[in-house]
Amino acid sequence: MERHFDQELATLREQLLRMGGQAEAITKKAIRALERRDPALAEEAFADDHAIDRLEIDIEERCVQLLALQQPMARDLRFITAALKISNDLERVGDHAVNIAGAAKRLASEPPLRSLGDVPRMETLASAMLRDALEAFVRRDTESARALCRRDDDVDQLNRRISHDLLTTMIEDPSTISRLLELILVARNLERIADLATNVAEEVVFISEARIIKHHAEDAQPATPSDDDFGRS
Amino acid sequence: MERHFDQELATLREQLLRMGGQAEAITKKAIRALERRDPALAEEAFADDHAIDRLEIDIEERCVQLLALQQPMARDLRFITAALKISNDLERVGDHAVNIAGAAKRLASEPPLRSLGDVPRMETLASAMLRDALEAFVRRDTESARALCRRDDDVDQLNRRISHDLLTTMIEDPSTISRLLELILVARNLERIADLATNVAEEVVFISEARIIKHHAEDAQPATPSDDDFGRS
Repeated sequence: MERHFDQELATLREQLLRMGGQAEAITKKAIRALERRDPALAEEAFADDHAIDRLEIDIEERCVQLLALQQPMARDLRFITAALKISNDLERVGDHAVNIAGAAKRLASEPPLRSLGDVPRMETLASAMLRDALEAFVRRDTESARALCRRDDDVDQLNRRISHDLLTTMIEDPSTISRLLELILVARNLERIADLATNVAEEVVFISEARIIKHHAEDAQPATPSDDDFGRS
Repeated sequence: MERHFDQELATLREQLLRMGGQAEAITKKAIRALERRDPALAEEAFADDHAIDRLEIDIEERCVQLLALQQPMARDLRFITAALKISNDLERVGDHAVNIAGAAKRLASEPPLRSLGDVPRMETLASAMLRDALEAFVRRDTESARALCRRDDDVDQLNRRISHDLLTTMIEDPSTISRLLELILVARNLERIADLATNVAEEVVFISEARIIKHHAEDAQPATPSDDDFGRS
């Protein structure tokens, strides 16, 4: 019985890692579709998202069964409740990648933009955060999980700068408005993906230390509102 | 012991309802701040969000303790795992309301817009969905929970129309670009709030029937990508 339980936990861990890999891959594919102006690649991302959705359902069912049949305690219990949340976070990453792929598809049928600016760089940062969050999860590495939460600020800042620059260009050249609005929303989706990677990292700390660090509960300081748009205040 | 457990479940239910009420109230407050061009009201929304965040942490801790100490089975187990997800969904509603309040605050310091168009109506629809999802949760009313999933389509459609109209106005009058972009993002946040209400409704079905209806798992049809931007494809 005990051994069977350990095996089930190992399967759960392996499924989460697979899902993390898929979430990273779909994000990269969506941005590649944008860069190459390739609607077929965008369609592929739509299909990939269905696989991610199915994996989420599998993971949820496994978690509920483990809770019901094994009545786990302490660290195992925290692992399973965190698995529920991580799979939900990764599923949302897939949704954001689908939004990006949708923008890529629409932009492919319009005149090319002169530049995508720092949007591809933002994808590199967000994908790396996602990969490192899963890596921290495997290694139960709370140090790098905490560092990840700080890296999220860099992505937020980059998003604000991109939005501000694109807005300026729109005003200078109104013929770009609808296309650059797509790009602003792509940046916003990437910013959300980085947030979700941060959520995963927070769960890593929770599993290992039974501490909830989100919402700055750790230092009991009030969080500033996530004024994540343009910093024009 | 059994009675204590029932009492704990009742407290959990009551906390979720309170959190649902707060999520609806903060959404209304953010839109009112936008309509009245009232930065002080926007600031209030920021503060309200901290209360929602704290309630989420309380609920999570209660759920994990209940799982650990009571080892619940079947329906109670599904209720507790669903409570974890619902509190996460409601916390995200608070984040979206904060984004809206941020836009309200920035717009209050710029020339007034001629009209907010259908944005306030979209808030009415999204808030009603949130209220009805919580109501369905209390009554374990799976019928109205299922109906809610269909109402989400109306909100998506309204969002697409609003975005399309605002984009047209931007192109006609570039002096409105930055302000209307704020409004497009407000509509998008409301659309996400309606999505989250739908998530809550899906959990209601899960608790009562042990069925996962999200991602169209119920009818096993592939979901179309949530191409939720402009319908310009």
